[in-house]
Amino acid sequence: MDIASSFLGRDIVSMKELSREEIDFILDRATEMEPIADRGSDMLRGRIMATLFFEPSTRTRLSFESAMLRLGGGVIGFAEPGVSSVAKGESLRDTIKTVENYSDIIVIRHYEDGAARVAADAAGIPVINAGSGSLEHPTQALLDLHTIRAAKGRIDGLKVALLGDLLYGRTVHSLLYALSNYDVKVFLVSPERLRFRRDLLKELEGKIEYEEIDDLYRCLEEIDVLYVTRIQKERFPDLREYEKLKDSYIITRETLRHAKRDLIIMHPLPRVTEISTDVDDTPNAWYFKQMRHGLYVRMALLSLILGGR
Amino acid sequence: MDIASSFLGRDIVSMKELSREEIDFILDRATEMEPIADRGSDMLRGRIMATLFFEPSTRTRLSFESAMLRLGGGVIGFAEPGVSSVAKGESLRDTIKTVENYSDIIVIRHYEDGAARVAADAAGIPVINAGSGSLEHPTQALLDLHTIRAAKGRIDGLKVALLGDLLYGRTVHSLLYALSNYDVKVFLVSPERLRFRRDLLKELEGKIEYEEIDDLYRCLEEIDVLYVTRIQKERFPDLREYEKLKDSYIITRETLRHAKRDLIIMHPLPRVTEISTDVDDTPNAWYFKQMRHGLYVRMALLSLILGGR
Amino acid sequence: MDIASSFLGRDIVSMKELSREEIDFILDRATEMEPIADRGSDMLRGRIMATLFFEPSTRTRLSFESAMLRLGGGVIGFAEPGVSSVAKGESLRDTIKTVENYSDIIVIRHYEDGAARVAADAAGIPVINAGSGSLEHPTQALLDLHTIRAAKGRIDGLKVALLGDLLYGRTVHSLLYALSNYDVKVFLVSPERLRFRRDLLKELEGKIEYEEIDDLYRCLEEIDVLYVTRIQKERFPDLREYEKLKDSYIITRETLRHAKRDLIIMHPLPRVTEISTDVDDTPNAWYFKQMRHGLYVRMALLSLILGGR
Repeated sequence: MDIASSFLGRDIVSMKELSREEIDFILDRATEMEPIADRGSDMLRGRIMATLFFEPSTRTRLSFESAMLRLGGGVIGFAEPGVSSVAKGESLRDTIKTVENYSDIIVIRHYEDGAARVAADAAGIPVINAGSGSLEHPTQALLDLHTIRAAKGRIDGLKVALLGDLLYGRTVHSLLYALSNYDVKVFLVSPERLRFRRDLLKELEGKIEYEEIDDLYRCLEEIDVLYVTRIQKERFPDLREYEKLKDSYIITRETLRHAKRDLIIMHPLPRVTEISTDVDDTPNAWYFKQMRHGLYVRMALLSLILGGR
Repeated sequence: MDIASSFLGRDIVSMKELSREEIDFILDRATEMEPIADRGSDMLRGRIMATLFFEPSTRTRLSFESAMLRLGGGVIGFAEPGVSSVAKGESLRDTIKTVENYSDIIVIRHYEDGAARVAADAAGIPVINAGSGSLEHPTQALLDLHTIRAAKGRIDGLKVALLGDLLYGRTVHSLLYALSNYDVKVFLVSPERLRFRRDLLKELEGKIEYEEIDDLYRCLEEIDVLYVTRIQKERFPDLREYEKLKDSYIITRETLRHAKRDLIIMHPLPRVTEISTDVDDTPNAWYFKQMRHGLYVRMALLSLILGGR
Repeated sequence: MDIASSFLGRDIVSMKELSREEIDFILDRATEMEPIADRGSDMLRGRIMATLFFEPSTRTRLSFESAMLRLGGGVIGFAEPGVSSVAKGESLRDTIKTVENYSDIIVIRHYEDGAARVAADAAGIPVINAGSGSLEHPTQALLDLHTIRAAKGRIDGLKVALLGDLLYGRTVHSLLYALSNYDVKVFLVSPERLRFRRDLLKELEGKIEYEEIDDLYRCLEEIDVLYVTRIQKERFPDLREYEKLKDSYIITRETLRHAKRDLIIMHPLPRVTEISTDVDDTPNAWYFKQMRHGLYVRMALLSLILGGR
């Protein structure tokens, strides 16, 4: 079976299930989507995507919905669980067994680890994980890779720093798994208190070269990519802890003076204060462009899974 | 006038307004919709449906929206009253007189008895009742009939049990009216406290053969269809009353041992605990397939009322 | 450059930025949209509009969404800020810099004065202000003009009364600016406490003939248009003040006996009690028809800005 047809009807739940060959194939398809993102297409005319967002997310939801509309398909769904039958005590599995009757593919965002897997197992139609719990957000990782490749022309050989909350941020978990398919060196830069989970690092042992540091300046001169993440208030059990750490890592125009000229700065967004707005107009700022690559990657996945064209 | 054209521009507010001939016509049209539900169509291209949900309901809303998209139409609306002008004190009539300017058909769900009738009277465009108050939910009754017909090949001659909360469940009210058009026997199985409303039963006197019992086992051996309903917490003025009754009627795989081999189990969903999940994989479980029939029936109604094809 | 092409890619933030020639051009285009509003079109096929509603509004949102669907385009967005990244502390500018990657035009409603301007400055795609703060609501003013022109055949030479809350209502601010492009006389009828803002009136000095009165009956016999506005509860710092004033200006069928036979009554809606429902069936009632003109005007703007046909 060729790669393209291996995607037909497939679930996308975790980065762990994608090989480098498959990832590269998705990224190539995403690049092909760029002109279609501008002019629209009829590739998925008559098909319906259901977006089930049990946790709010403007950007991921709108990105998926835009991707489906640009391909000519239709969208149904909900943006928060309050308006769903979950409020009446329905199980996730039952919600999925219902919604699969109304759509051709389900995109799910959920606050619980493993929820996307439960959904994929319950559904007779393909399911894409749009972020579940604190661990998995595979389409974000794919769009991050696509952004890096667009900026640098390659992923192999790069040095990448992941900065901020590495304990709770699901984005960095998926991204580290994704990067482990490439020949990169990763600096994991975080306060001691918010370091990457030990068990998860162990899984990656031998698959990726990494170094854990707490001071960005120890790697700033040599990195090609700086991936900044927000320290999410809602993840902290103790608010005083949050206040103490939230300003630990702030990137400003001054920071750039100590970095490579062609360093790219990425961020999954939303940003609060961790990147100063004076960085926005520099050529190093890639966090808004990143969003555009999210559109390309999601169009690629939808068209591959639903067999567009 | 032939039946098809009698549906053009018509409101669907109550099961009481549909004759058996009309019901059968809708069910036949729904069957024709099955292949179109898979591949989509352009039947209602350029037409717009407004879904006004003053009470949340994932399944009914998504079902209608999917039906409209599969027919090539577009959808606008709201999923809860909080985001509507109702929050500013607007009357339902004024909301309808506004929305009719933006759409070709209105689908309304409302917590008040009679709200769908008010909407239909106010609107210059057709209105479909997607559930109002505790009495009417005609499209649910139609999809229930379509499911029974699909499973059994007929409706006449069957024995049907309606189980659970028969006092507050709007689904069973509409379904009992719908069934009264056919030659069936109905067992109304409920706790004394949650029996069917006397005045409503009186209306059906002579039109349908029924028996009220409180023990499912008194009819289990002879029934062809078991229609289970949830005991809705939010309908109880007293929470202790709810706790006492909620587990009264639980269907398990064990229950099936005492029933006909080809008994079909239905449920309007969402389910909480009233059907054990170990029933889901049996051939008797028709509650998820029911959702698919909802799509067919709603596609049939939209295409008949808006004159598709 | 001809007028049509001057609209390509343009922001619509304030009535102050539109000349009479441009307004008339939009109104003419809106009239051309009437047949298209009935049958739909493919003019904007493949294009996407994002509706970002930071403040709920059924009518404006549904009107814009219907306009886009009638032109063949697609819609993404949110109906309230609770489901957006704003809840996570994101700035409006960042939200816009994200959403511009997913859509071709942004329609924004916001509770803050100036928010639409901020959005337009941040966005690389056109932005339409769908109401911001207490001052600007340009598409409402345009639909008001279109309604007047449809009812009266002209705008020049008319006498118009604006009644009710002239201090807080953003509709009347935009409308007064719009009317200042025409040769009209305006009566500003309000309680002393809710008179038009002095600074804003000063801006219009010499551009429009107006008179401030507190008694409708002083102008009722001579006016051609009576524009009624709601006294918005949420705008009052003091609830007792609200209770005292809210019934000050109630229009009933009796009011009409003292007016010109062909007086038209308008209202931006939602209405609470300020126009009695017994007026609804008179030929003077134009407030529901107004909504239809909103559809035409928004279709005109979308097609002009996005270059349809």
